[in-house]
Amino acid sequence: MDYRIKNIEAGTVTSVQGFVAGAFEAGIKKQNVLDLAILYSKTPCTAAAVYTTNFIKSAPVLINQQHLRDRKAQAIVVNSGCANACTAERGMADAEEMARSAAKKLGIAPLDVLIASTGVIGIPLPMDKINKGIDKVALTEDGGHELARAMMTTDTFAKEIAIQVEAEPKGFTIGGVAKGAGMIHPNMATMLCFLATDAVVDAKFLQSALRKAVDSSFNMISVDGDTSPSDMVAILANGLARNQPLNKKNGEFFQKALDEVCLYLAKSIARDGEGATKLIEVVVEGATSKTEARLAARIIASSPLVKTAIHGNDPNWGRVVSALGRSGAKVIEAKLDAYLNHICVMKQGHPLSFDKQQASASLNSKEVLLRVNLNLGQGKAIAWGCDLSAEYVNINSAYTT
Amino acid sequence: MDYRIKNIEAGTVTSVQGFVAGAFEAGIKKQNVLDLAILYSKTPCTAAAVYTTNFIKSAPVLINQQHLRDRKAQAIVVNSGCANACTAERGMADAEEMARSAAKKLGIAPLDVLIASTGVIGIPLPMDKINKGIDKVALTEDGGHELARAMMTTDTFAKEIAIQVEAEPKGFTIGGVAKGAGMIHPNMATMLCFLATDAVVDAKFLQSALRKAVDSSFNMISVDGDTSPSDMVAILANGLARNQPLNKKNGEFFQKALDEVCLYLAKSIARDGEGATKLIEVVVEGATSKTEARLAARIIASSPLVKTAIHGNDPNWGRVVSALGRSGAKVIEAKLDAYLNHICVMKQGHPLSFDKQQASASLNSKEVLLRVNLNLGQGKAIAWGCDLSAEYVNINSAYTT
Repeated sequence: MDYRIKNIEAGTVTSVQGFVAGAFEAGIKKQNVLDLAILYSKTPCTAAAVYTTNFIKSAPVLINQQHLRDRKAQAIVVNSGCANACTAERGMADAEEMARSAAKKLGIAPLDVLIASTGVIGIPLPMDKINKGIDKVALTEDGGHELARAMMTTDTFAKEIAIQVEAEPKGFTIGGVAKGAGMIHPNMATMLCFLATDAVVDAKFLQSALRKAVDSSFNMISVDGDTSPSDMVAILANGLARNQPLNKKNGEFFQKALDEVCLYLAKSIARDGEGATKLIEVVVEGATSKTEARLAARIIASSPLVKTAIHGNDPNWGRVVSALGRSGAKVIEAKLDAYLNHICVMKQGHPLSFDKQQASASLNSKEVLLRVNLNLGQGKAIAWGCDLSAEYVNINSAYTT
Repeated sequence: MDYRIKNIEAGTVTSVQGFVAGAFEAGIKKQNVLDLAILYSKTPCTAAAVYTTNFIKSAPVLINQQHLRDRKAQAIVVNSGCANACTAERGMADAEEMARSAAKKLGIAPLDVLIASTGVIGIPLPMDKINKGIDKVALTEDGGHELARAMMTTDTFAKEIAIQVEAEPKGFTIGGVAKGAGMIHPNMATMLCFLATDAVVDAKFLQSALRKAVDSSFNMISVDGDTSPSDMVAILANGLARNQPLNKKNGEFFQKALDEVCLYLAKSIARDGEGATKLIEVVVEGATSKTEARLAARIIASSPLVKTAIHGNDPNWGRVVSALGRSGAKVIEAKLDAYLNHICVMKQGHPLSFDKQQASASLNSKEVLLRVNLNLGQGKAIAWGCDLSAEYVNINSAYTT
């Protein structure tokens, strides 16, 4: 199948036809900032979502699981400043009220509204502010930018993208917004991403395509700390592109396009890690399986010792090899090759001598590549992380107080 | 069995009869500090050790596994400043030479010497300095203190202890020294502990008792970052106490005493975590199994978000519950109780209101207790960690350069 993916300049989730969005300063956060937003499709959508695997799930996640049983949705309402997690029965009632409130404003059924909340855990939503705020949100065709800002917690920049897929006879558009300010351990551990497309997509294929795209993007920027009570990636497909319905058989290029959007947003989150100054890309090759390669890449990308070394431009590659060795992936030291950027530091288990000054200068860059080849099999995976700075500690030492 | 455990004032590993030790400034480290040491028993010992589970094992670990096949040893030689890990064939040859060199000095067989190296990974041992240094070490009856200092890397204090076990008709003594300056991710990921006892102990029982003591002490102060290429805990038992040989049947009080020594040294390591200002004790109760309780306690104790919150005296308990939820241990939110020190913050899944100022004041302490009761079963475990400070990042951003 012949197709071409084009980036849409200054694109966002509302770059997709039929989608509007808007945000409001509802006063949920102490600062005067946008903290409540709505994404709305003018027509009903096929929808899919993947959620946190944390045993502790926020009320919005539990409610969304119910609302998406019919694989349909038409709007998403989101607030920052309060996660509505660990809030027991009251949290569930509040989440349902939030959906009802948005549904009423939009003239749709509450079951067609998805909800998301991010912020402090264990405190109830200020429903008065939420309800009034929902009333005040003004929906516009470039409101995706406002939405992206309203979702932010300690993010330093909004994460948004849109791409156009040109294909015969009919192409389509995919747009998305995401938040998440910590790479490995997002602040309050929450990562949210909302995607929109005008493609006509079979509901089951949409779900499996989303799962697949998330597995090699959002699930590769985070290790143990990644599963928060509120994590969610959701996609709405309104079908306005009127293309031939896409499914497992003919949807490969839709998968590729979705992968690209998710990867861009995921890397943006890693790059914007709390206190981060660098994006770290970890490539693991030659593992006995893809599963082991993923495991190893994630462990290396999340190792505090690796992250601090990269922060200090320290070519201390022993930390990379040591993290690899404890990852659980099978490693035979005598077969191992390791690289810092493009400098080979270990070949077949033998440490190589290299110019430390030069290696340190090479690490002094906005993007750093760590690569290991286990030379045991065909398993390959890429993970992304960021460096660990003293600023991370400062950000996280005083959040609720 | 009636017995009493007494702490020996200023006790160390050479407080045990028949053991001598000494250290020397061999110049392996750049600074003029003790960096080479020997522990020696005047008589042959039954010996046991547990090692890192990292796939990448240092040369000393590999050599020790060979040397301990006969469950006998009489000396340990250790250096700091260089880990002799990821050093391929040369590292193995160097480690064997180090053992031969110590054996020659002591007039024993190389197979009766254990070796340990801690420091930077991937550079070869300076054998000239090692050999000359071994020659120069002077062994004395209170040399355990020097040994404890010579093992240190970024440790801020030496970790040593000795206890006397009074029992009829014959008691015994256990002493130990340990190093490890990072709790979760010890610098260069290395944790070493050498134990000595004059008790007569069956070799197989000694091994199983050591494994058991380590499982509830050293293995509970560390999570993923804990398995370095060099980790090792070794015990030498010279039998000079001439007690009835201890085994599985009559050795329960030996186990208790060994547990106590290991626990003290393990908590010392957690307390001395790189950049740490506090010891965090995490108690998990009511899990479906002990395995799940251990898992949960370790994940909570190692969560960067928990560690930074405690550093800032922030009563942000959502982070504790969130870490618990992602640990893999089964959790039912509606049954969960959680405490910060003795303040109940969640009861049966409901967030409780509490005085934040008061809670923050309570966390402003050298020791902090985090406790969760899952109310699902009988599984209980305790883990220890430390807070995460900006100083941790400073220490780890520039180690080799």
